[in-house]
Amino acid sequence: MRSEIIAVGSEMLTPWRQDTNSLALTEKLNDLGVIVAFKTIVGDRRTDLADAIRIALGRVDIVLLTGGLGPTEDDLTREAVADALGLELRRDHAQVTALYTRAASMRISMPENNLKQADVIDTAVVLPNPNGSAPGQWLDTAFNGYRKLVMLLPGPPGECIPLFDIAYLPRLKELLPPRHIAKRTLRAAMILESQADKILAPIYMTYPDVETTILASGGEIQLTLIAAKPAQDAAQKRVDELAGRLEVALQDWLFASDGESLEEIVLLNLALRQMTLAVAESCTGGKISERLTSISGSSRSFVGGAIAYSNNLKTDFAGVPAEVIARYGAVSVEVAAAMAEGIRKRTGASIGLSVTGIAGPTGGTDAKPVGLVYFSVADAQKTETFERNFRGPRERVRTWAAQQALDLVRRRLM
Amino acid sequence: MRSEIIAVGSEMLTPWRQDTNSLALTEKLNDLGVIVAFKTIVGDRRTDLADAIRIALGRVDIVLLTGGLGPTEDDLTREAVADALGLELRRDHAQVTALYTRAASMRISMPENNLKQADVIDTAVVLPNPNGSAPGQWLDTAFNGYRKLVMLLPGPPGECIPLFDIAYLPRLKELLPPRHIAKRTLRAAMILESQADKILAPIYMTYPDVETTILASGGEIQLTLIAAKPAQDAAQKRVDELAGRLEVALQDWLFASDGESLEEIVLLNLALRQMTLAVAESCTGGKISERLTSISGSSRSFVGGAIAYSNNLKTDFAGVPAEVIARYGAVSVEVAAAMAEGIRKRTGASIGLSVTGIAGPTGGTDAKPVGLVYFSVADAQKTETFERNFRGPRERVRTWAAQQALDLVRRRLM
Repeated sequence: MRSEIIAVGSEMLTPWRQDTNSLALTEKLNDLGVIVAFKTIVGDRRTDLADAIRIALGRVDIVLLTGGLGPTEDDLTREAVADALGLELRRDHAQVTALYTRAASMRISMPENNLKQADVIDTAVVLPNPNGSAPGQWLDTAFNGYRKLVMLLPGPPGECIPLFDIAYLPRLKELLPPRHIAKRTLRAAMILESQADKILAPIYMTYPDVETTILASGGEIQLTLIAAKPAQDAAQKRVDELAGRLEVALQDWLFASDGESLEEIVLLNLALRQMTLAVAESCTGGKISERLTSISGSSRSFVGGAIAYSNNLKTDFAGVPAEVIARYGAVSVEVAAAMAEGIRKRTGASIGLSVTGIAGPTGGTDAKPVGLVYFSVADAQKTETFERNFRGPRERVRTWAAQQALDLVRRRLM
Repeated sequence: MRSEIIAVGSEMLTPWRQDTNSLALTEKLNDLGVIVAFKTIVGDRRTDLADAIRIALGRVDIVLLTGGLGPTEDDLTREAVADALGLELRRDHAQVTALYTRAASMRISMPENNLKQADVIDTAVVLPNPNGSAPGQWLDTAFNGYRKLVMLLPGPPGECIPLFDIAYLPRLKELLPPRHIAKRTLRAAMILESQADKILAPIYMTYPDVETTILASGGEIQLTLIAAKPAQDAAQKRVDELAGRLEVALQDWLFASDGESLEEIVLLNLALRQMTLAVAESCTGGKISERLTSISGSSRSFVGGAIAYSNNLKTDFAGVPAEVIARYGAVSVEVAAAMAEGIRKRTGASIGLSVTGIAGPTGGTDAKPVGLVYFSVADAQKTETFERNFRGPRERVRTWAAQQALDLVRRRLM
């Protein structure tokens, strides 16, 4: 069953506002086995809106509209749905009463134009809205000979989502065959999307009943597997089976089997081994620490460290001899190693992690270009160093460097 | 001139991801006088995508597509645009070379399936992407006898927006009639949106020709003023006049008169005074450092500091006497003061900034609830301390705390 969510409102076509209802609605629809195939955002223009509704009715079975149910002249969802379906609006007397009652309870007089909110599309079921004056509407109707469900929901998230839960969800459940969705998210670090797809596509292509999505960002691949089946067991079995095969194929790039973040995995592995981590960050400037401390309970395994941005701090906090910096430069494999060893010793942590590099956009040379980053991971046994070259603007270099650094610690712990 | 932005990718039809490129693109299009009339989000299904493109071509003049240009089997934007326009794809030899060169410079071998990214729609102008492997494409074409502009842009925001700026914007400007827009963005810290609106609405309401938008997030108010006039001077004059009045009303909450970020303003003021800053972060865990070092050239005024997450590091790196921690607790005004003074002395910076608090969700007590955060700013003259209580989940507390900390430094520098 395919659905479309149409978010109505010119403010969501500005640079500053975004539809957010659709995220929560999507999750609830997916849980019922309903796929969201399209999302459309359209302004408060009756013809645009009616056209968008006709297009949706032509391509999906269920159309959800959010917004445009208020009392202003710009609120045209009711009218446009009626236009698209060739139906009439009627003023619902129970709703008129409800509007007057609501105004009275708020000790305000009822503005005349509020009555617009009592207009109901013929054949629609009116769904009272406990958190606002605009009721929802539910239409079980036909378009070009096909059965369609059309749902009108208020725009404010505090009205839309609760109303969906109490009024639409039970109705949908009653109509839809009992379908169950199973989900798994695998995550892998520092593998290119193209490389991952080459390895994984031959596997997931043999599971056409499992929807597999690959998402890449900031040195990370996220694989989402979703299957919908009549029974939960069957859906879960297929997803787990495919996940198992993809996990093997991803080898040690894989870091999470159930959606965990890299920082969570690093902290979990430190805790399991009763080890602690300290960092000395130069070019990442706090990104690694910030990610680790975003996890509640991180203080158990992460002691902190130094933002060794200046050379003095590299020496004073991370114990890098000034002559090593003078000789090799702050961005060098020697300084990276000394930083990791130094921060480990200074803090007494089991593992010291360091990053030093040239984030750009300035500061690069032919020998040491922007994007060159050195890493080091030191523990009681050994100190390893790594060199990477990242591309792109400052923020990208820093994001990738932080991801690489965390992944190096994960690999050391494996 | 009406446009539609089509964001391509099944991940944006999940509950977890949202199109964000369209916000920045909308701003840039609006500046050119182009209205965004529709936004569509569609998954990686060739027929759905081709249909969505046809619909867009039928209702607007300019169609922007973001995403679906990668190397995977799911990346089908090129194919679908060709389908919709009845055009062919050809493999572009210059792009093939570019892909091999890029792989070589990254010292990796070129995966065979990456070549897909060299496929170009017939008659399209290929726009090399400095931040990724998928080039953009620009089509000045016809659909049902009408002239249409179709733009294919990469999905990752770090690629999409810069490429739009360097390659698409100049081309659009050349085609569109000249338009004069004046814009100013004022920013203020640690003032509530409702409080700001109460002060500001009576002023900006008297400028109906200037579009004023207030946006609040993370302890910050952003006011955007936009005026479009037949002449640049006239537009600028109205915007500057309103900005001037709003600035006065915002008093010392105002930190930026032209869109600068709080970290930029702090760094600028430090540099002007030839002063340096060091931080000792506990509950913010690197957020302050991360924000400061996100600015290129920050090393001039920001020396770095300590992520003093454990008590040991508060003592060892920030010089907080262990007995002060034992006596008052790590989250206390005494420890905050000692951290700021300590980090200043240890690093030799002009100003020391510290944060210690309870980010939650656990760790709170009746006396020291989740959200309680102490700050201190120390220079050679004096050490000031501050106490704040923030609400909400861990991430919100940390974000507000980092914002408050930077604002305290700004106020000290004023």
